[in-house]
Amino acid sequence: MQALIVELEPVLGERLTTVASIREQHGHDESWHHPAAPDAVCFPHSTEEVAAVVKACAAHRVPVIPYGVGTSIEGQVIADHGGLCVDLSQMNAILAVRPEDMDATVQPGVTRTQLNTDLRATGLFFSVDPGADASMGGMASTRASGTNTVRYGTIRDNVLAMTVVMPDGRVVRTGSRARKSAAGYDLNHLMIGAEGTLGIITELTVKLHGLPEAISSATVAFDDVAGAVNTVIASIQYGIPMARIELMDALAMRAVKAFSGLDHAEKPTLFLEFHGTHAGVKEQAEIMAELCQEFGGSDFAWATQEEERNALWQARHDAAYAAKALRPGMEFLATDICVPISQLAECIEATQADVAESGLVAPLLGHVGDGNFHLVVAVDRDSEEELETLAAFNQRLIDRALAAGGTCTGEHGIGTGKRAYMEAEHGEGWAVMRAIKAALDPLGIMNPGKLV
Amino acid sequence: MQALIVELEPVLGERLTTVASIREQHGHDESWHHPAAPDAVCFPHSTEEVAAVVKACAAHRVPVIPYGVGTSIEGQVIADHGGLCVDLSQMNAILAVRPEDMDATVQPGVTRTQLNTDLRATGLFFSVDPGADASMGGMASTRASGTNTVRYGTIRDNVLAMTVVMPDGRVVRTGSRARKSAAGYDLNHLMIGAEGTLGIITELTVKLHGLPEAISSATVAFDDVAGAVNTVIASIQYGIPMARIELMDALAMRAVKAFSGLDHAEKPTLFLEFHGTHAGVKEQAEIMAELCQEFGGSDFAWATQEEERNALWQARHDAAYAAKALRPGMEFLATDICVPISQLAECIEATQADVAESGLVAPLLGHVGDGNFHLVVAVDRDSEEELETLAAFNQRLIDRALAAGGTCTGEHGIGTGKRAYMEAEHGEGWAVMRAIKAALDPLGIMNPGKLV
Repeated sequence: MQALIVELEPVLGERLTTVASIREQHGHDESWHHPAAPDAVCFPHSTEEVAAVVKACAAHRVPVIPYGVGTSIEGQVIADHGGLCVDLSQMNAILAVRPEDMDATVQPGVTRTQLNTDLRATGLFFSVDPGADASMGGMASTRASGTNTVRYGTIRDNVLAMTVVMPDGRVVRTGSRARKSAAGYDLNHLMIGAEGTLGIITELTVKLHGLPEAISSATVAFDDVAGAVNTVIASIQYGIPMARIELMDALAMRAVKAFSGLDHAEKPTLFLEFHGTHAGVKEQAEIMAELCQEFGGSDFAWATQEEERNALWQARHDAAYAAKALRPGMEFLATDICVPISQLAECIEATQADVAESGLVAPLLGHVGDGNFHLVVAVDRDSEEELETLAAFNQRLIDRALAAGGTCTGEHGIGTGKRAYMEAEHGEGWAVMRAIKAALDPLGIMNPGKLV
Repeated sequence: MQALIVELEPVLGERLTTVASIREQHGHDESWHHPAAPDAVCFPHSTEEVAAVVKACAAHRVPVIPYGVGTSIEGQVIADHGGLCVDLSQMNAILAVRPEDMDATVQPGVTRTQLNTDLRATGLFFSVDPGADASMGGMASTRASGTNTVRYGTIRDNVLAMTVVMPDGRVVRTGSRARKSAAGYDLNHLMIGAEGTLGIITELTVKLHGLPEAISSATVAFDDVAGAVNTVIASIQYGIPMARIELMDALAMRAVKAFSGLDHAEKPTLFLEFHGTHAGVKEQAEIMAELCQEFGGSDFAWATQEEERNALWQARHDAAYAAKALRPGMEFLATDICVPISQLAECIEATQADVAESGLVAPLLGHVGDGNFHLVVAVDRDSEEELETLAAFNQRLIDRALAAGGTCTGEHGIGTGKRAYMEAEHGEGWAVMRAIKAALDPLGIMNPGKLV
């Protein structure tokens, strides 16, 4: 490590540091996972600098941990094996916006709100919106999604090409600006979701979408979660091209009311958004209102003004923080299963029964249009007993998801937190992943201990 | 080879053959590429049989060439290195259709029309539609797309999970039925487009789409290709959610008229289709009609009846065959570049000038909504001179595409026909692909000589 620092100091100067407070700041994410600080942190400014850093780390066999804004929640940025944290937040330039092609090229430290603020004058927007104001590189690395995936796809569907510094310092471009290609192995999708274990993303070209002519948002309260979920299933099968279909249960609504000041009933509630032409949005909303009524939805509250809409969705995006505020001072585990939509109602029902039996305080919220939902559960991470109870609960939840043909994580990724479930989900496929890792990172320096 | 046949005969019986006519039938695709017959052909019936075949081939170091229906056009199925052709056409069962989840699980030999015929009663359809009636496994292997990609995506966007027999005979499941997942490396997308060089696909779970309430098709003729292309660009930027936007130039129209009996002007023509609610389709069509007029479109001809629509799109799907019929008895090369939409008009203009200068007969057709177009050029494959002229033309075309930020192949794949362009398109990325190939197929038995 010392030799590495000596080698990199002429390149990075003060942008390479071993100051304890900065190391500690980079040693945790937003979840319960035990922190571990890296030995040093650096702040590169270019692909070339990242390549130089990675080459040096390879020469000195020092672990490399890529870091965006630290909002991951499965331990992806924690330096369990020490090493050098590569903080990409200063690579935050928007390099090109091409309205005619509806794409943009950005550095990895650009955050989603930064990009959308920059795009305001263009009539375009970047769609992926996890709760946190995550960085573009971080979202690609963890294969993030968010509230409007049901209409616009996950980040996997929205990254056309990337520049990646490989574990040996080579610079590779994955993909092109063409909207489709059949030219060879899909390196782009291999790197998306690789959590920095195969390289460091230093540039991304992403799809943009046109702001719709009309937007309309609404909330609808239900007496029970089943009614809300069945409404969602019916709307998907009906083919309503909704932009957002989000669910919060009564406990999540209580948390959000307290945290964000929403004036809503503490009942299971769907948050809906329709995008389209004026006529199209009206048509969608009418069909949806009928479906809601059919399944017992009431209190249809429209947010017609932009300010109201923004407040509504800000509250939704802050829901995880709101859930955490229910038990201040605690750490949190967020579950993340995703199942086929036909299995969703049964899966949520069984899960809520399990929550009740386990005596957990676990607000439920999620992207139910995708079959993906979260429980945000408080935990004292110094209590082995609490961690064990939660792990057993999560195991049962994931077993339920896998039995239903689903996945242990819809959007949070693996990190260290979900490695224990990879064998059950992928079987021999996990061995194939390890073979790819060994081939591309034979020294094992890239974010060691994560994912594979 | 002989030892392999002795080993496999008890397993496959008459479904393993060395009959010359069957070997020859499996030794060519639909393009100009020189045929080369495999040493034997087998017809497995299950994943287990495929695994047994691949294991035996690995033990005997015999090349394995997966085969669907043989409609590839870059040499993907040609047995340049001899070996055993694994014809999957008898694995053609539709294993499950799940209307509530809008997905289906099929064996790889199922063809796209077979699946859609089976789906008729469900109100759902499978969207990917290359010209040929390709097999599902073949489409996934070459990362195929087709006429409605602009709305429904390529096969990459429509395969949720696959079962793949790896080069050592292990059986791996890529993905799940969940609509999204962040669980590890994206093996599913790695296998899609791998052209059988990393394994054999033996099962696919694909997304289905709801048949729209209303469908409306039209053709519009233009005086020049530029007007048609500019209309397409404007419609994409306007955000009209069109289901199909296809272009044929005057020569392609002449070919299609002669082949399919369409009664259309021999002018550059857009083939359009709108999907949605009755009101939505009407709205889309009205906006599109205005855009067409603005860019000089005339002769707006609506196909309102299902039969008319079917005839129109059958003619479009047969366009490559129609182009071939312009010069019967010849072989054909189909180019396949894809560029950002902003570059499309200029790229087509430069290409048409090049066609004129080169003295080629090269009807143009393509999925212009994706920025992807083809020229179908006759060639006498026994003439070194003609092949060289064409190769030089294709090289200039591909250079133009790469300079415009595009790709050498939008949907036909690499096979042997486009390997020469991989380095230019991918640089170091091609070395990464080779490293993946070496890691997963260390014996190099899977479809050797293709792609990497």
